[in-house]
Amino acid sequence: MTINYIKNGNEIYSKSFAMIRSEANLSVLAPDVANVAVRLIHACGMTDIVYDLAASPTAVESGRTALAAGAPILCDCRMVAEGITRRRLPADNSVICTLNHPDVPELAQKLETTRSAAALELWLPVLEGAVVAVGNAPTVLFRLLEMLSAGAPKPSLILGFPVGFVGAAESKAALAADSFGVPFMTLHGRRGGSAIAAAAVNALATEEE
Amino acid sequence: MTINYIKNGNEIYSKSFAMIRSEANLSVLAPDVANVAVRLIHACGMTDIVYDLAASPTAVESGRTALAAGAPILCDCRMVAEGITRRRLPADNSVICTLNHPDVPELAQKLETTRSAAALELWLPVLEGAVVAVGNAPTVLFRLLEMLSAGAPKPSLILGFPVGFVGAAESKAALAADSFGVPFMTLHGRRGGSAIAAAAVNALATEEE
Repeated sequence: MTINYIKNGNEIYSKSFAMIRSEANLSVLAPDVANVAVRLIHACGMTDIVYDLAASPTAVESGRTALAAGAPILCDCRMVAEGITRRRLPADNSVICTLNHPDVPELAQKLETTRSAAALELWLPVLEGAVVAVGNAPTVLFRLLEMLSAGAPKPSLILGFPVGFVGAAESKAALAADSFGVPFMTLHGRRGGSAIAAAAVNALATEEE
Repeated sequence: MTINYIKNGNEIYSKSFAMIRSEANLSVLAPDVANVAVRLIHACGMTDIVYDLAASPTAVESGRTALAAGAPILCDCRMVAEGITRRRLPADNSVICTLNHPDVPELAQKLETTRSAAALELWLPVLEGAVVAVGNAPTVLFRLLEMLSAGAPKPSLILGFPVGFVGAAESKAALAADSFGVPFMTLHGRRGGSAIAAAAVNALATEEE
């Protein structure tokens, strides 16, 4: 049996992006956000996410500048870290996920929160100016907002894409309502996930499609 | 500032699954498939995937039996491998991803296909009886069907969840039309992704929610 399908990776990419640009209503987004949105749509297969995307005015510029200057990327889970394409990163940026650090289970007990949220304690030394990518846990986004409210160092950008039924929409609404002056990008509602969070980092890492 | 949100991981899980069971129209699925669907919905935040899910009659049973007997899990990308919760696996099953094997770039050139599809050549020694989890590349699903058509050893189950615009819907339609006798589960259309593929493995690994 011979199946007829496109086997050339570059051709698959360029045809995918052409389909997205032709089908998605990118005009509802600022032009720099639209360029990022193309990769987010590519990661999830859904063109209608444009209507749920929100970004602060300087989000894309802040993220691109920070990454070019070597900012570390802080991920809430290993899947986000794995989804970041290292060769796209402009400054061999560190990709950090503290979730599986041996101190985290004890921190979670002490702080009476999820392991995902407790892992943020270990971000503090590198949080200032970092690019934060949340693709899984709403509690991470809630905890980050609490830390910022309490005067924690400010990252350059928060990519807030937790997914699910309990707290996901609420945490993203809280981010969009008051991000404590930190530029952000988010997808309102229940949709999100690590592939979208990683795609946002990949889009900001280089303008090359 | 104090934000009011649920911080207990178990409570978040049980409330999420209760919301899904209350909102999703699980009655369109066979009961064993519905139990898996709950975790897929949890991974993507979308209850309407039930209408695009398809599974062969023995898919769930075949996957559960294979995993319990120690079958390896073959993943098309690192994100799927990272999304599989090791402590849920019933027999300390191997989780294998050959995409980054040093031989793959040369294989891809020789076979004139994507690296994702070329990486399947390295699955051959462990393909028989394995659980295959595809969460990214349509070319992987196409290539697997070609290999099965040519007489390759049969896995116990194909979890076919590639995502995107070029080949994703087509490869899943081809799987559902003729899986060469291999049990399968898939999500028709453009939606899919590594979180859904990993969630399917996690659901089959144990019935514990």
